[in-house]
Amino acid sequence: MAIRAGIVGGTGYTGVELLRLLARHSEVELAAITSRSDAGRPVSEMFPSLRGHVDLAFSDPAQAGLDDCDVVFFATPNGIAMQQAPALLDAGVRVIDLAADFRLRDASVWEAWYGMPHACPGLLPTAVYGLPEVNRHKLRAARLVANPGCYPTAVQLGFIPLIEAGVVDPLTLIADAKSGVSGAGRKAEVHALFAEAADNFKAYGVSGHRHLPEIRQGLVEVAEGGEVGLTFVPHLTPLIRGIHATLYARLVADCDVQALFENRFRGECFVDVLPAGSHPETRSVRASNTCRIAAHRPQGGDVVVVLSVIDNLVKGAAGQAVQNMNLMFGFDETCGLELVPVLP
Amino acid sequence: MAIRAGIVGGTGYTGVELLRLLARHSEVELAAITSRSDAGRPVSEMFPSLRGHVDLAFSDPAQAGLDDCDVVFFATPNGIAMQQAPALLDAGVRVIDLAADFRLRDASVWEAWYGMPHACPGLLPTAVYGLPEVNRHKLRAARLVANPGCYPTAVQLGFIPLIEAGVVDPLTLIADAKSGVSGAGRKAEVHALFAEAADNFKAYGVSGHRHLPEIRQGLVEVAEGGEVGLTFVPHLTPLIRGIHATLYARLVADCDVQALFENRFRGECFVDVLPAGSHPETRSVRASNTCRIAAHRPQGGDVVVVLSVIDNLVKGAAGQAVQNMNLMFGFDETCGLELVPVLP
Amino acid sequence: MAIRAGIVGGTGYTGVELLRLLARHSEVELAAITSRSDAGRPVSEMFPSLRGHVDLAFSDPAQAGLDDCDVVFFATPNGIAMQQAPALLDAGVRVIDLAADFRLRDASVWEAWYGMPHACPGLLPTAVYGLPEVNRHKLRAARLVANPGCYPTAVQLGFIPLIEAGVVDPLTLIADAKSGVSGAGRKAEVHALFAEAADNFKAYGVSGHRHLPEIRQGLVEVAEGGEVGLTFVPHLTPLIRGIHATLYARLVADCDVQALFENRFRGECFVDVLPAGSHPETRSVRASNTCRIAAHRPQGGDVVVVLSVIDNLVKGAAGQAVQNMNLMFGFDETCGLELVPVLP
Amino acid sequence: MAIRAGIVGGTGYTGVELLRLLARHSEVELAAITSRSDAGRPVSEMFPSLRGHVDLAFSDPAQAGLDDCDVVFFATPNGIAMQQAPALLDAGVRVIDLAADFRLRDASVWEAWYGMPHACPGLLPTAVYGLPEVNRHKLRAARLVANPGCYPTAVQLGFIPLIEAGVVDPLTLIADAKSGVSGAGRKAEVHALFAEAADNFKAYGVSGHRHLPEIRQGLVEVAEGGEVGLTFVPHLTPLIRGIHATLYARLVADCDVQALFENRFRGECFVDVLPAGSHPETRSVRASNTCRIAAHRPQGGDVVVVLSVIDNLVKGAAGQAVQNMNLMFGFDETCGLELVPVLP
Repeated sequence: MAIRAGIVGGTGYTGVELLRLLARHSEVELAAITSRSDAGRPVSEMFPSLRGHVDLAFSDPAQAGLDDCDVVFFATPNGIAMQQAPALLDAGVRVIDLAADFRLRDASVWEAWYGMPHACPGLLPTAVYGLPEVNRHKLRAARLVANPGCYPTAVQLGFIPLIEAGVVDPLTLIADAKSGVSGAGRKAEVHALFAEAADNFKAYGVSGHRHLPEIRQGLVEVAEGGEVGLTFVPHLTPLIRGIHATLYARLVADCDVQALFENRFRGECFVDVLPAGSHPETRSVRASNTCRIAAHRPQGGDVVVVLSVIDNLVKGAAGQAVQNMNLMFGFDETCGLELVPVLP
Repeated sequence: MAIRAGIVGGTGYTGVELLRLLARHSEVELAAITSRSDAGRPVSEMFPSLRGHVDLAFSDPAQAGLDDCDVVFFATPNGIAMQQAPALLDAGVRVIDLAADFRLRDASVWEAWYGMPHACPGLLPTAVYGLPEVNRHKLRAARLVANPGCYPTAVQLGFIPLIEAGVVDPLTLIADAKSGVSGAGRKAEVHALFAEAADNFKAYGVSGHRHLPEIRQGLVEVAEGGEVGLTFVPHLTPLIRGIHATLYARLVADCDVQALFENRFRGECFVDVLPAGSHPETRSVRASNTCRIAAHRPQGGDVVVVLSVIDNLVKGAAGQAVQNMNLMFGFDETCGLELVPVLP
Repeated sequence: MAIRAGIVGGTGYTGVELLRLLARHSEVELAAITSRSDAGRPVSEMFPSLRGHVDLAFSDPAQAGLDDCDVVFFATPNGIAMQQAPALLDAGVRVIDLAADFRLRDASVWEAWYGMPHACPGLLPTAVYGLPEVNRHKLRAARLVANPGCYPTAVQLGFIPLIEAGVVDPLTLIADAKSGVSGAGRKAEVHALFAEAADNFKAYGVSGHRHLPEIRQGLVEVAEGGEVGLTFVPHLTPLIRGIHATLYARLVADCDVQALFENRFRGECFVDVLPAGSHPETRSVRASNTCRIAAHRPQGGDVVVVLSVIDNLVKGAAGQAVQNMNLMFGFDETCGLELVPVLP
Repeated sequence: MAIRAGIVGGTGYTGVELLRLLARHSEVELAAITSRSDAGRPVSEMFPSLRGHVDLAFSDPAQAGLDDCDVVFFATPNGIAMQQAPALLDAGVRVIDLAADFRLRDASVWEAWYGMPHACPGLLPTAVYGLPEVNRHKLRAARLVANPGCYPTAVQLGFIPLIEAGVVDPLTLIADAKSGVSGAGRKAEVHALFAEAADNFKAYGVSGHRHLPEIRQGLVEVAEGGEVGLTFVPHLTPLIRGIHATLYARLVADCDVQALFENRFRGECFVDVLPAGSHPETRSVRASNTCRIAAHRPQGGDVVVVLSVIDNLVKGAAGQAVQNMNLMFGFDETCGLELVPVLP
């Protein structure tokens, strides 16, 4: 029998992407999707792409019956899930937050970067960071999952093999990351207008982006507590979907990086290590849950360059959330995610 | 047991799209994909999006064993299928040509528009034009299918209800159609370069495009032989995928166009008539086999404006070919085509 | 000595485009640019492209000294210029409104389409519609100019030769027009986001767009009062800049359309009639004030297809405003507008 | 009196961009533009954007009268200028090569990276590398100028202040650079097709790109011969025009990087150092000869992040060539280059 899934805040891009994936998931019944402002409106009216696939209407959160769901996804702005998760968890509902509320273990760090008090710091130790390639075992038993950010997914998957193996200097890491504009969400903001973002490229947040502490926390963990020094520069690029992370690290031990990556991710269903010399393209993972990675040592020197691509809305958000749900409920990890990337 | 499918000419966009669809089709085993120039090269090396989904390598047409297939798709330039189809048909293989070789019933018209002699005019009467919404019955028994062109699919589906009902003047039809650049194929040509086609819009082929006689033939048939006058202007627009046809016709009888369209396409699995007043977007069908249609009468006048959108590589090519295959082999018509459009 | 020019509402795309043009205009001193919300902020901080070219800061309208200008441009939303123009005109300032306030001669028609009462209907008869190719003589003496809309510029220039010559049926005109997204302005709206408008194409406003009465009024005038029947369908296309109008008309008299267009626009500095058989591209006029036009008779039939392209922010807005200013002040009509289009 | 300028190989993007700039240059008469394959064809037929601005037709190189020019620009593939420059120089013509033939001082290094023997290694010591911000004095007397590559321009301008001042470790430099697709030239190649390059992002040439030795040579010179270790990763991004270089260096001395950059480029007409904390956008220099730069020290640490943007066809090619010509002939350095960037 299918589990009942609810979505809080379904009018953004991660919401519609969750719907695209869950609509075809054989083990899930879509029970409710909430939106205070659009309550009563059929989802497929806002997103005509879902006509014929999703019959639900948005419902008011109060009447949505989320307590009766087996799992609730929060596809909301930061600061919402932490208000509502405690009651749902008390009611026995499992929670997957696609926003940042439960990503940082240290509430004071969270509050410094997100500029608000945390509503339930006591839950932070129980939240599992939803990167299956690191925490698969814990995720199977998780009741509260912090779904990783899009940049952190691409960057961590690219650095983890090197740091786990202890072959690079963890103090001089550089992550130069590029994101498509859907990463900014479906919010009416001038900087994300077509006429602003098309045919344009820029960095942003060089002085400090919220994904920096998240990435650093994840890398510190695989470094077994060792210090990590990371420079992280995100860029806005005229893609709809896609993240390309270009990662730089300095080798401190000789290393066959190709073998290192292949061994680390052997058997992973959603990480694809490309042959040596490859340059992964963002479109090669478009609309799919795969992360493709290539590792280089230019001119055989001591700098490792890792190229890591994901679809920010799938492996970087909704797809990874479904992958985590699959683990939490004992489904096949790939269920509902057997998507062939759309190219061209 | 799955049928065995072969693809001739799999290095173009319709080829890779066929692979994307057939790789997940429960009733099909991909038996061979040919490319003379790339024989021996794994398909997923050329199209990394298919890594993990398609294990085939391109094979030389002579060694591909196409005779042992149940169905062969031609995703080749015009003029190839007509050379090879006769032998395959003789061997009992069913053939679906995604190019134009069998689309026009009159060999002399074909030769005039395509600039070469037809290799097997005797087969033309046996070919079924693969528009299921018109020829579903014939397609179930077809051995040779002429898969429609992309423009002709979008334009015919939009005009057919009006012409069948006899409510518009068939002599003054106008089809203003806009196509994404993938419609030009995966050929190295200057006009299709990113730096030429991005941030640019233009008409082409105003003096006469090969899809004009194809559309006219289809409309004449539903007009039951009456004359049809059509002005067809295609445009190149900076989309990867998508066709938007804006159709103009003059009413000669009063008519509830909304009801007319809804009735005509009721029960159709891949034609979605939108509510009155809608404006379909190409992205609402991106990567799916659906045609979405809206019909308008601006200011209640006697001009009907029909808006019809498809993904040129799916309903306009590979998806429609799979739909035709499903009909030919008695599969569920939607098998392998239950695709939720990718938006954004 | 240079004239003093002011701009009201300089934070939108027509505003920044006016600045781009006026900054290099040898006869103009930029005296003031107003923005209530951004008063005090240097213009080049909002638009870094203007660093080194424009030293002004935005000023509060009340302190801007617009009364001391020779000419004031309104680059404001509809409904603003009609509030402020009377006082400026009384003070002897000439006014060019880039919005719609003075475009329609009939106040009641204006009020019906724009949904508000007109603040100064008495000024409407004195306003000159700023299409120099029609009203050049009147513009030289104008004190109040209604700068045409972007679609109306492209559509009228394409239809005018045919209608003036009386060679087409004026009752069955069709204008299928496509615009870049900058035409929607620099307003934070979801539908204009990159992730909504990129890789997407759609029609809008089929039931009735405000440019329809404007175009019809202009065509009625050149038809010498005869009736005009026009179907106008605008489309949003993933261009930053550019309008492509595809126009359809039915010939009622034999006609060498190529000669007709060449004769009509001979000597026009900003209308370029292409050789027979051409397909103008929007990028061929990008960032310039030129309208390029080609006229076709497909298959030698009685349908004329006219292709007309402009840059919506230049000939469709700011450039045409400068052209009008040049006429009003007796400057060379091309002054400040000798721009070579940017291609690629 | 105007000088006479010739262009060899005018059918690519740097060629048409040179024409755009020279057509409005008050001190230059366009004397000839050559193309063997298109001899006799009006330039404006291939590039309709030039209609009304350039009346020349392409001419056969042999008949072009290049010997009678004062300056000849080579906008040719690598390996052409080195064949023809010697004779032109002997005839007293000054030569500016926009390709790579004269960029590297060491012929053996050149031959290794470009894969062909150098035709005139004896000329290499006389060629001046055309980066005015470094070599202005030498350029005034130059007879043969090697116009820098697009990446090298953006990268060197961003690193030079730091290296000249000796405040960073020159052995661990990283340049993560992103280019628009026009950088690949106007050649019919599959990878540069719209349907390949749009909505896609990828690195390329990680193992070694020809611009690496060029950048390294330039940095070694300003490092006064000290060793330079540079990792250079270029990326293809869906822009028509634009390069964004994100540069990383490690401080070895305390330093006010903002003041350092402002002082270094004070008075430079085409380098604009943005206020502290800025993020330059590629579109802020679109179609102009300006390089905009911002320097950051994230979290006040010892990593300097420099953001440097140019238009690859202007400051990265044709514009810098005109700037060099201005210096060579004693014109105002900005002559013909007073271009306001086109935004949006």
